[in-house]
Amino acid sequence: MGRYAFGVDIGGTTVKLGFFDEEGHLLEKWEIPTVTDGEGAAILPDVAESIQAKMREKGIGSDDVAGVGVGAPGAIDSEGLLVGGAVNLGWGVFNVAKVLNGYLDLPVKAANDANAAAFGEMWQGGGKGYSNLVAVTLGTGVGGGIIVGGEILTGAAGAGGEIGHIHIEDDETESCNCGHRGCLEQYASATGIVRLARRRLAKDDKESVLRQGELTAKAVFDALKAGDPVAEEIAEQFGEYLGKGLSVVAAVVNPEIFVIGGGVSKAGDILLKYVEPAFQKYVFGPCKNAKFALATLGNDAGIYGAAGLVLNERMGAGADD
Amino acid sequence: MGRYAFGVDIGGTTVKLGFFDEEGHLLEKWEIPTVTDGEGAAILPDVAESIQAKMREKGIGSDDVAGVGVGAPGAIDSEGLLVGGAVNLGWGVFNVAKVLNGYLDLPVKAANDANAAAFGEMWQGGGKGYSNLVAVTLGTGVGGGIIVGGEILTGAAGAGGEIGHIHIEDDETESCNCGHRGCLEQYASATGIVRLARRRLAKDDKESVLRQGELTAKAVFDALKAGDPVAEEIAEQFGEYLGKGLSVVAAVVNPEIFVIGGGVSKAGDILLKYVEPAFQKYVFGPCKNAKFALATLGNDAGIYGAAGLVLNERMGAGADD
Repeated sequence: MGRYAFGVDIGGTTVKLGFFDEEGHLLEKWEIPTVTDGEGAAILPDVAESIQAKMREKGIGSDDVAGVGVGAPGAIDSEGLLVGGAVNLGWGVFNVAKVLNGYLDLPVKAANDANAAAFGEMWQGGGKGYSNLVAVTLGTGVGGGIIVGGEILTGAAGAGGEIGHIHIEDDETESCNCGHRGCLEQYASATGIVRLARRRLAKDDKESVLRQGELTAKAVFDALKAGDPVAEEIAEQFGEYLGKGLSVVAAVVNPEIFVIGGGVSKAGDILLKYVEPAFQKYVFGPCKNAKFALATLGNDAGIYGAAGLVLNERMGAGADD
Repeated sequence: MGRYAFGVDIGGTTVKLGFFDEEGHLLEKWEIPTVTDGEGAAILPDVAESIQAKMREKGIGSDDVAGVGVGAPGAIDSEGLLVGGAVNLGWGVFNVAKVLNGYLDLPVKAANDANAAAFGEMWQGGGKGYSNLVAVTLGTGVGGGIIVGGEILTGAAGAGGEIGHIHIEDDETESCNCGHRGCLEQYASATGIVRLARRRLAKDDKESVLRQGELTAKAVFDALKAGDPVAEEIAEQFGEYLGKGLSVVAAVVNPEIFVIGGGVSKAGDILLKYVEPAFQKYVFGPCKNAKFALATLGNDAGIYGAAGLVLNERMGAGADD
């Protein structure tokens, strides 16, 4: 068992890498470009080379490294298989853990990037100390990662925790990216908040700072903090949808804590003020003690979680040889 | 490791007991009354006595028995603790596994009865061969049990899988037993189906056999099988609610299969004909391959699952000493 681990978070434009000690401290982090040409065939060799270079730089050998964890966009099952490929990397279906293990003589574990980020928040972030956790990422879309008993809930096809696509509104007329209508993502993502704002502003002529400048989720929360009453109505609607959606998640997996991250969560604690009351309004009694916290690792959640996959014995996905 | 196991399913009026071999064959089953007087203090001693009597009858000792599994109504966490007591047994908060282990010199594991039944259907019933499963019980209420990676998802407070209380309808005016309005249970339980039928019949005067006799869920499905068009409308509404609700569950835990049991499921395959299309209409793409099956163990699911808890090494709840 080595004293170090690497965490890798593969995104569409850059790959983030982190070098961790066995207690989970991030000792160093860096990035390399994601080369998606040629069906992304260079991505994992580039990752392997970057890790080997870092090992040489640090003067450490294979015996010093517990392993490498990788998070990538796309559904990855508990064996490390990228079930449906990853369009924005150019990747088809293959076993990410096994291939990287083939380039590196180190144990490798792989997970979906949102699931890895959830694991990171449990291990060293806003959910530290909990082992039953739901991480909610409010960005362009709504992502999620579920940890049950200290392990990622990957599901049958690696699509566990896709809470952005739970049906929450019967009367929606616009389509979600997934093709359905009325998904949670249509109201609780940054894009969704803009949709709610746009609709509210079109309803009447009530004065609001939101009528000037670009309409963004950040603008809505800034206006809310400045006491804008229209922004408050929009925040209440957002909170109603997200709180209702998370009440459904709570009845299914009964988590100890929800950890809210992603760009929208930069609004801070004020966001929880609108989500928690709505959650309490809908949640099944025995599940009502779920706590709410903000994510603390930001963009590093993915590398933390990936490293955590190999340092935390409770997680078992990947190629161990 | 013994060659036998006992499965116990504690209900409000009777306790069901089963004697199993290590391959999971039910060798014998019997019942004893549930004595709820005096805060149900006699229940576990009665269970212990009944098991010891059976062991004497069979001429087997402690070494021959792998253990005893117990399912009981109420939220039971992964340690065997009855988190919120069990009102209809007269029980307060205590560790069911540890107390029964104190009466019997055998390993004991405990789980919520719906979760135990789900485990039974996975182990020897309609979900055999799958390890990511959601069991749905359509009875007076709607219960659920979720199996992830071969283990019961108990959740933080033993309330995992309470899918009857996911919010599914914003416009409901009647209250659910849980105090909220618009829970899945209000439309997909036997009582819920009667509610849908009552409302449909009140809407107009369209002819239907359901206007005679007692209005029950069974009557609705019998009328459906006889080609009654009003019954078909009701079945479509039921299927729409249940399919929509299960699509939400699928986005959260991404199961391989839904196993539908409980009294309402006695209607047979025709029930799935109304649920699956609605499920497909709402489900997030990557989760759409979930299969549907009917439960096969009936009222024995609980004793199967309880015995399975001790025979199946993957489940870890309870007192092992």
